[in-house]
Amino acid sequence: MKRTAFFISDGTGITAETLGQSLLSQFENIEFIKLIRPYVDTVEKARNMVQQINAAAERDGERPIIFDTVVNREIRAELASCNGYMIDIFATFLAPLEQELGDGSSYSVGKSHSIQHNHHYQDRIDAVHFAMDNDDGARTQQYDNADIILVGVSRCGKTPTCIYLALQYGIRAANYPLTEDDMERLQLPPALKQHKEKLFGLTIEPERLASIREQRRPNSRYASFAQCEFEVREVENLFRRENISYVNSTTFSVEEISAKILVQMGIERRLK
Amino acid sequence: MKRTAFFISDGTGITAETLGQSLLSQFENIEFIKLIRPYVDTVEKARNMVQQINAAAERDGERPIIFDTVVNREIRAELASCNGYMIDIFATFLAPLEQELGDGSSYSVGKSHSIQHNHHYQDRIDAVHFAMDNDDGARTQQYDNADIILVGVSRCGKTPTCIYLALQYGIRAANYPLTEDDMERLQLPPALKQHKEKLFGLTIEPERLASIREQRRPNSRYASFAQCEFEVREVENLFRRENISYVNSTTFSVEEISAKILVQMGIERRLK
Repeated sequence: MKRTAFFISDGTGITAETLGQSLLSQFENIEFIKLIRPYVDTVEKARNMVQQINAAAERDGERPIIFDTVVNREIRAELASCNGYMIDIFATFLAPLEQELGDGSSYSVGKSHSIQHNHHYQDRIDAVHFAMDNDDGARTQQYDNADIILVGVSRCGKTPTCIYLALQYGIRAANYPLTEDDMERLQLPPALKQHKEKLFGLTIEPERLASIREQRRPNSRYASFAQCEFEVREVENLFRRENISYVNSTTFSVEEISAKILVQMGIERRLK
Repeated sequence: MKRTAFFISDGTGITAETLGQSLLSQFENIEFIKLIRPYVDTVEKARNMVQQINAAAERDGERPIIFDTVVNREIRAELASCNGYMIDIFATFLAPLEQELGDGSSYSVGKSHSIQHNHHYQDRIDAVHFAMDNDDGARTQQYDNADIILVGVSRCGKTPTCIYLALQYGIRAANYPLTEDDMERLQLPPALKQHKEKLFGLTIEPERLASIREQRRPNSRYASFAQCEFEVREVENLFRRENISYVNSTTFSVEEISAKILVQMGIERRLK
């Protein structure tokens, strides 16, 4: 069974998309064709959307599901004329919130993802540059400014996690790959030792690690199961010995790994 | 006036946070203390949350606003005993959606941000590595594999935009800084010329560019207003002459710039 879902907004569409995806993910038996339609900010564009929705309804033989965060009433009225099942996110929650907060909503478009509303926007951009400059142990002299330093074997997921922490939360995340040298020395390199309270470990199943490394350097010792198994075991020993908290990244997304890290380290995310 | 808002989930909390932020951003007169509480996945943790919420209610003299995407009914029942104003996102929308879709919800936790549900997860991770490897014109030989190549003067916002496109949408985004050499040659470098259909321009107000560059290299010619004004003017001329679409990044966030680029290039975001 196929159903089309539209995520429609007069801004970026991120809120409609995030909520819509969450809700639709609960229906496992249905295959959805998902279409994001940001910047539907004129009645004319809304009219065009209505045509797209009605065409999808005809094609599917079922009306599409519409997740809509349009703020403007005229545009919303135009959209409402479509042959879709409307989930009007703002209409559902704003009126009761106005009553609870005893204050009127500004009904302004796209505030949530604008620079103006986002007090920490520059922190997030600076953190992205920080994460890129401090990727893969390239430098250690900026560790004084790091909020967190991710450690683990090569290719266990450190880089995307740092980038996510930086971009979403403005957290200055560096990462340092632990190598065989570090393992043989049986202790942390000095650059890490002096920032021990910022360290967080990532680990991974050796099978998964070998398959990731195989894509990068086929048939290498680096990608062999024996090597991966050795490195993972040694690094986990190191984490335990040095009392470094760690997460196994094998079955988790960067979103999940990041949320777990922040909970475990007790870092409060910087919100707008 | 201060109010506390909690974003509570038994998963990452991303959906509760995104929707909650969007809704609260509409109330400009109220200052919110925002607290994300992911992985509230046992009744005991819920009981602890209730205590935190009640303490905030007492401190603020007003009940906190609770955005909750907890799926488990027992945990939700525990939470509901708090002295907060509950916005129960799943309860509000899931039952009507079940009726519309003629299918039961799986009521499973944290699906939206899990690897299992996210068919394009590996694409996103690969795209992040691609963006990092192809940042700042470091290489051009991988442009065959790029979905998009962002061009513009140094420090106009190309890097964070590429990272965002990669991480959120699995789009392989490279970026290439146009230098004075390129401007004086009055044409595109060969590496860009052969991928003209992938190019998208970023531009920026000279004042803003000068202030960003000043932080990086104080009192340099690079950061001078005259230099910034010259580069921006030349690059915009180049965009127009070569018929390259472009966006002015000055007042927009990476979320907004990315949404605009995708709309203008007609790229459909890869959704789960």
